[in-house]
Amino acid sequence: MPSRYAIGIDFGTESGRAVLVDVADGTMLATAVEPYRNGVIDEHLPAPHDDVALPPDWALQDPADYLRVLQSAVPEVVRTARVDPADVIGIGIDFTACTMLPVRADGTALAQLPEFQGDPHSWVKLWKHHAAQPEADRINEVARATGQPWLDRYGGKISSEWFFAKALQILDEAPGIYAAADRLIEATDWVVWRLTGVETRNACTAGYKAMWSKRDGFPTPEYFGALDPRFASVVDDKMSREVVPAGERAGGLTAEAAAWTGLPVGTAVAVANVDAHAAVPAATVTDVGRMVMIMGTSTCHMVLGADEREVSGMCGSVEDGIIPGYFGYEAGQSCVGDHFGWFVEQGLPEAYHDEARRRGLDAHALLQEKAARLAVGESGLLALDWWNGNRSVLVDAALSGLLIGATLATTPEEIYRALIEATAYGTRVIVEAFERNGVPVDEVVACGGLAEKSPLILQIYADVTGLPFAVSGSDQTPALGAAMFGAVAAGPAIGGHASIEAAARAMARRRPDTYRPIPANRDAYDVLYREYVRLHDYFGRGGNDVMKTLRALRASAKSRTPVPMEA
Amino acid sequence: MPSRYAIGIDFGTESGRAVLVDVADGTMLATAVEPYRNGVIDEHLPAPHDDVALPPDWALQDPADYLRVLQSAVPEVVRTARVDPADVIGIGIDFTACTMLPVRADGTALAQLPEFQGDPHSWVKLWKHHAAQPEADRINEVARATGQPWLDRYGGKISSEWFFAKALQILDEAPGIYAAADRLIEATDWVVWRLTGVETRNACTAGYKAMWSKRDGFPTPEYFGALDPRFASVVDDKMSREVVPAGERAGGLTAEAAAWTGLPVGTAVAVANVDAHAAVPAATVTDVGRMVMIMGTSTCHMVLGADEREVSGMCGSVEDGIIPGYFGYEAGQSCVGDHFGWFVEQGLPEAYHDEARRRGLDAHALLQEKAARLAVGESGLLALDWWNGNRSVLVDAALSGLLIGATLATTPEEIYRALIEATAYGTRVIVEAFERNGVPVDEVVACGGLAEKSPLILQIYADVTGLPFAVSGSDQTPALGAAMFGAVAAGPAIGGHASIEAAARAMARRRPDTYRPIPANRDAYDVLYREYVRLHDYFGRGGNDVMKTLRALRASAKSRTPVPMEA
Repeated sequence: MPSRYAIGIDFGTESGRAVLVDVADGTMLATAVEPYRNGVIDEHLPAPHDDVALPPDWALQDPADYLRVLQSAVPEVVRTARVDPADVIGIGIDFTACTMLPVRADGTALAQLPEFQGDPHSWVKLWKHHAAQPEADRINEVARATGQPWLDRYGGKISSEWFFAKALQILDEAPGIYAAADRLIEATDWVVWRLTGVETRNACTAGYKAMWSKRDGFPTPEYFGALDPRFASVVDDKMSREVVPAGERAGGLTAEAAAWTGLPVGTAVAVANVDAHAAVPAATVTDVGRMVMIMGTSTCHMVLGADEREVSGMCGSVEDGIIPGYFGYEAGQSCVGDHFGWFVEQGLPEAYHDEARRRGLDAHALLQEKAARLAVGESGLLALDWWNGNRSVLVDAALSGLLIGATLATTPEEIYRALIEATAYGTRVIVEAFERNGVPVDEVVACGGLAEKSPLILQIYADVTGLPFAVSGSDQTPALGAAMFGAVAAGPAIGGHASIEAAARAMARRRPDTYRPIPANRDAYDVLYREYVRLHDYFGRGGNDVMKTLRALRASAKSRTPVPMEA
Repeated sequence: MPSRYAIGIDFGTESGRAVLVDVADGTMLATAVEPYRNGVIDEHLPAPHDDVALPPDWALQDPADYLRVLQSAVPEVVRTARVDPADVIGIGIDFTACTMLPVRADGTALAQLPEFQGDPHSWVKLWKHHAAQPEADRINEVARATGQPWLDRYGGKISSEWFFAKALQILDEAPGIYAAADRLIEATDWVVWRLTGVETRNACTAGYKAMWSKRDGFPTPEYFGALDPRFASVVDDKMSREVVPAGERAGGLTAEAAAWTGLPVGTAVAVANVDAHAAVPAATVTDVGRMVMIMGTSTCHMVLGADEREVSGMCGSVEDGIIPGYFGYEAGQSCVGDHFGWFVEQGLPEAYHDEARRRGLDAHALLQEKAARLAVGESGLLALDWWNGNRSVLVDAALSGLLIGATLATTPEEIYRALIEATAYGTRVIVEAFERNGVPVDEVVACGGLAEKSPLILQIYADVTGLPFAVSGSDQTPALGAAMFGAVAAGPAIGGHASIEAAARAMARRRPDTYRPIPANRDAYDVLYREYVRLHDYFGRGGNDVMKTLRALRASAKSRTPVPMEA
């Protein structure tokens, strides 16, 4: 049989990436990146609506940017790999989530229509859009008051990042947009719709982000009506009750999508998936006990369980949500690479940039080199990793960052290391919550940019958590996973795979090296971790609500102009 | 009568400055700065002993740098002002304190002798040398255990910055240097000794930094002996019980000092003074109710009281310590300009430096321009101003800095403004402690570099404290005050003044403008201040000792090498 190929398309926060892999052994033949022209929209809308400023905590995207990825990155990988488009048997996509948008019945995004695009609510709400906190608060309050049975599946708290909080914010603030939206849909499902002409809803985002479960479906109309009478029939009006497991075939490429991508009409397209979830089998994990961490701008933690457990403050447990036959448990840290990126952009002095340029290094590489020379505890610093709120365990977007222990001798590499350590402590809090609730974690397989490029980060994580950290063999794990699901959608008859387990056995691998805890470092970090937990609980569990007070003052100050000085 | 002049010499943290003023009206005719060649010595000793590394918290100076100020800045002001040296009738000096050094009986500093200068303990211990904390702890512990009556005068706590803590550290760590030191002396008294050939001890540093009082003298030999038997006779062995009030004549210039300075032999030299204290009359304050704040690398708060009060955590109250006839109260913040300087050096991104250069601005001016555009509370940040410990109220050098409320949208100007606000909250804590204990503060007269150059800082301080902030008319207030004391030392017979009050009436003035609290800002700051106080008390009064834990871990980590990674 001739070689057969699958394409995985990974839609990230700043760009989309296509990979073309050999279905037989997972070898990656080509990869192509298309940066989003409008990136993350968080200050004002793109021209011609750039006079529309966005309030704090907003984060939007442009749906046209996603289509450009299909039109440029996909043809590019086929071209670069010099394969026959007819040998590409399947396509899978994965996406950030919950990233959602309002669309027309024919699939046109409202943000693509001139009559709507001046309203920020017509655009894609990116996963890190945090302005729906009041709606999330209402969702939680009503759920608790009415004893909703699904609440425990999500650790007792729904995040402002999730689907119904974002949908309700549209209704609250832009009822006209809500009315004009025939459908409210995850961006990942929307892209599959644009590829196949078929509207599907994947079980993964439905389960993790929209309170759906295989056994009970969505929350009831009575519950939604208690949030707002106009919201009672949101599922039937704007969504669909038909939810399909990941890995199935959603449909075949339409003529339009075939023209965009240069692939044959009818090429198999898998049901949409989420970046982190697609990565799990691609990181070789299709069984219990090993956690997969995707470490990028944020980190997602995925672990499989044999049975259903309720883990307080986790992002959710979904049956068949990651790998069929297992309960998929997910947790998240909302600020990891973003954290370090913020520091390099907003806090790194000139001399460091000069040194990095002189030595031909990336600023992060320079900082990690310097930070690696510090002993554990030498910085005298401790940080809470909540620059973007807390997504797991506390599930509170109103929390903010803290740095303690600074002196006049504090250096940038010390702060940088403290920020890395803070994210490692955050991971340990998550691992301990899983273990305490009967979901064992014996090893971690890390993937994503941070895992590939930063031995220091992995060593710190191993030292802080006491767990061995392996690294995924692919440098594009989610995209490889998406391609694997594409191969499963194509099926064995035309050279694909019969199941995701079979695809994982054939196509997934990990690096030979593993980062193991260094006992002396682990002991020192145990002391620091106790201090972290104490601050975590004091500021995160109501001991001192100063972070919320500050956030409220900030929001009200942003609406005022400063009082001019008089002298 | 022809014009008569006085010279004031202000020994700061980075440089020494001489000013030449007209005794009749305080007009400044010339000023000259001599940067210390060896600056603040905090990493290793100067060459040829640069292989001697200094532990954390050390801060030394080179006594030769002080003499170079006499040799270059003083002749320069006489030359620049084109006055007849014979018309210079008096010299006064002021200094940072407690800045102390070990010397020989003939006045030679041990750091100037080759046989000692390889030992860090032979050098000048600068005010911000914080490595004597264990000694300060012992001083406090024994004082409390033995019920020392003087402890209450210092708010119940002796700082690691003060004289006997530093002296005891020499004995603890370098008994050879202690033995070789015929005298232990404040740098300000040492410079007067070098000028006049007469060893005097000024009441001001004796009272504020060495537990001396006009009525009770120094602590007893029994007390000192309880600290260490070898320390029992420290006062009689290494110091002097003869203590002279500021403003008196210490002596006249020796032939050697006349040669250094280009002034006539015998020119009157005032008893040594301290920078902050010399500034009080120069800022027009010779009565109760008005606080003088010297705002520089650190801030010193001075207020006069009609009677003796015990104010918890203040740096001390000394009868005749500032102006004869009053109790002088002093408080301090150990990190103000240093705070902002640290941020510009260690935390300001390249783009800001680029913009400042392009626009011909100093980085601080640029940051203040941007920070002034923020409404109160808009940064969402709150900081504890303890980057250099806490010198007043809590009196704890082991405390460290905290920043809370950071998000991925946090900008450098927001952090900068939060650091300014933190120092303003610190000032309000001090003002409230004075008022609560019956030392009224109705207005502030600010002086020093920050006060002169930063309308934003003064407005924030006025808004936070609710007090009007006036500014001293001189841009060299401590040096002017030193010159005023020089004019008093010269006396009216040769054209000087009879008292410091008379000198203040003739020579001191303030700027016409005053910064007044803006009501809306004041209200917003009241909310933030409550949060500051809560964090201040939680981290500063034992609610959570994480800062001390971190500092201890840092000290022990510094003595280890990092464990190498294994992969």
